[in-house]
Amino acid sequence: MGIKYSLPESFTSYRDTVRIELKKVIDSYPSVVCNMLRYHMGWQDEHGHPCCRESGKFIRSTLCLLSCQAVGGDTSQVIPAAAAVELIHNFSLIHDDIEDASYERHHRPTIWKLWGQSQAINAGDTMFTLAYLALLKLKEQGIGDAKIAGSTKMLSLACLELCEGQYLDMEYESRLDTTIEDYLDMAAKKTAALLAVATSLGAYLGGEDSKLVDSFHLFGKELGIAYQICDDILGIWGMEESTGKSVGDISQRKKTLPVVYGLQNSEGEARKRLEKLYSQKSIKGEDIDEVIKILDQLSARDFAENLAEQYYYKALAQLEATRLDLSRQAPLKETACFLLKRDF
Amino acid sequence: MGIKYSLPESFTSYRDTVRIELKKVIDSYPSVVCNMLRYHMGWQDEHGHPCCRESGKFIRSTLCLLSCQAVGGDTSQVIPAAAAVELIHNFSLIHDDIEDASYERHHRPTIWKLWGQSQAINAGDTMFTLAYLALLKLKEQGIGDAKIAGSTKMLSLACLELCEGQYLDMEYESRLDTTIEDYLDMAAKKTAALLAVATSLGAYLGGEDSKLVDSFHLFGKELGIAYQICDDILGIWGMEESTGKSVGDISQRKKTLPVVYGLQNSEGEARKRLEKLYSQKSIKGEDIDEVIKILDQLSARDFAENLAEQYYYKALAQLEATRLDLSRQAPLKETACFLLKRDF
Repeated sequence: MGIKYSLPESFTSYRDTVRIELKKVIDSYPSVVCNMLRYHMGWQDEHGHPCCRESGKFIRSTLCLLSCQAVGGDTSQVIPAAAAVELIHNFSLIHDDIEDASYERHHRPTIWKLWGQSQAINAGDTMFTLAYLALLKLKEQGIGDAKIAGSTKMLSLACLELCEGQYLDMEYESRLDTTIEDYLDMAAKKTAALLAVATSLGAYLGGEDSKLVDSFHLFGKELGIAYQICDDILGIWGMEESTGKSVGDISQRKKTLPVVYGLQNSEGEARKRLEKLYSQKSIKGEDIDEVIKILDQLSARDFAENLAEQYYYKALAQLEATRLDLSRQAPLKETACFLLKRDF
Repeated sequence: MGIKYSLPESFTSYRDTVRIELKKVIDSYPSVVCNMLRYHMGWQDEHGHPCCRESGKFIRSTLCLLSCQAVGGDTSQVIPAAAAVELIHNFSLIHDDIEDASYERHHRPTIWKLWGQSQAINAGDTMFTLAYLALLKLKEQGIGDAKIAGSTKMLSLACLELCEGQYLDMEYESRLDTTIEDYLDMAAKKTAALLAVATSLGAYLGGEDSKLVDSFHLFGKELGIAYQICDDILGIWGMEESTGKSVGDISQRKKTLPVVYGLQNSEGEARKRLEKLYSQKSIKGEDIDEVIKILDQLSARDFAENLAEQYYYKALAQLEATRLDLSRQAPLKETACFLLKRDF
């Protein structure tokens, strides 16, 4: 960490393709609600004027297309699935921002902050529905109905995990006894499920080998857990300017990995303080600094970085288990490496 | 209105079938979130203990199965679609209750009131996802993949309309210039879209005649508008005890049909008062009585009842246009009649 890595080339090229598809899906539905969605995506300002404030890196859709490419599939056929996964991700961001009462995302007011909670809930529901309609466009790409039904099931199961993960994430806020196992279960659901469905959909739609699909699912899952841990680290030690988030993880008492580690491994006075701070309704100002100081003393960051690395290697092992040509694995490896070394 | 009609027999028998399917779908997913969903359905109290407080009449799922039956289809095959429509309806209720800040539904605290807004948003999202998974169970009933993909598209398009209608419903709260046309457009989307997809899915999955599907869609749509108008009337002149809703429509400045009619057709002092009352942030106590008095003077209730009746007859005309045996149309007619004469 700390070094700024640029987006791999494969990443940027697919991003343009996905953006075009996303715009098509959203524009195909002539509703005022879509103005909020275009605002959220960074394509419009709050008055409906075009702007270029896109901040999403389209990680999930790119992973989907790279996975399709890795199994030798025709990526152009799979774009609707990539777009669907991206829409699910963005629906969840819109609702998460309400649930976590986040005022800003990527330096811009969140939808609920501008249009109110009620309209934001409804905008998220619209984005969710559009994800399914995006997926159904696989038919236009020559994908058969059986695979479309199969994809719909895979996406829906991932959404259920997403909701369960979100539930746990909120539930843990008011608890002090969250274990590393609890945390990993939550991260697997809240974050990794969507990365796993991205990679597995790519392999499923791009090929015919169901064992490969399983391997790609596990690859996405392990990578997703690693990714979430890195996100946790950035949420505490990252710079607000680069993430565009206020250091909300601590103030909202989120049981991120470093904090879970801290609560489980601190002793004596440090433990008492940490438990006291995390028993407040929210953590503010100097209390945040104190939490970080205690975590630093416990080397919680090292612990988290090591665990992220372990999951990164687990992910790579899943990729290697596919026995695909190394040249085919390379872009996914490059992307995985980029995702974990990111400093944004 | 005013006379208490009991549920038609066909209604009650299908209700049991749908309930079993809904329970299967919700129970198949072992998540704590489902406790909130079972609570919402009236099958559990807030502590997770079984109870019998089910209040939903499963109107939409019953219409789906009756439509299937009318075109000569095998209703047992179509149960997953009926359940899916019911789940969409209930997801929208969970989110509506947050959006409208409703404390109670059918004499019980709403999910958000018990578990907070954030968990309620997430519970709604879970219900939404389960609807898609319910629909995919059509495969187990021998429905082909093409029809499953087609059904997914129909359901998703209805959800988009639902969201658009919900947007308009909220948007109109702060407006005084909503026209009858605006209102009908909103009702068509907010309410009728889901009834229309219920009836059209029944015909689509139960038969092979696409013209029939269109007629059933229009039948559901016209019926849905009539149904919403009746709901508006109950929301003003119905008894709180029987609807289980507080007279929230007026206090929330909802532009229901009688109010739209009142704002458009009042003159002089009455118009000034109505506009003044509806320019407040919310309407309370004696002001509510005053609104009702003005609407009564304008015979707004008669106007609404007449329009509901017109849509009821439009719905029946669509049903007759199917040229199905009258004996096949009968249960749907009976249900349509029941829905509009309801006094609950």
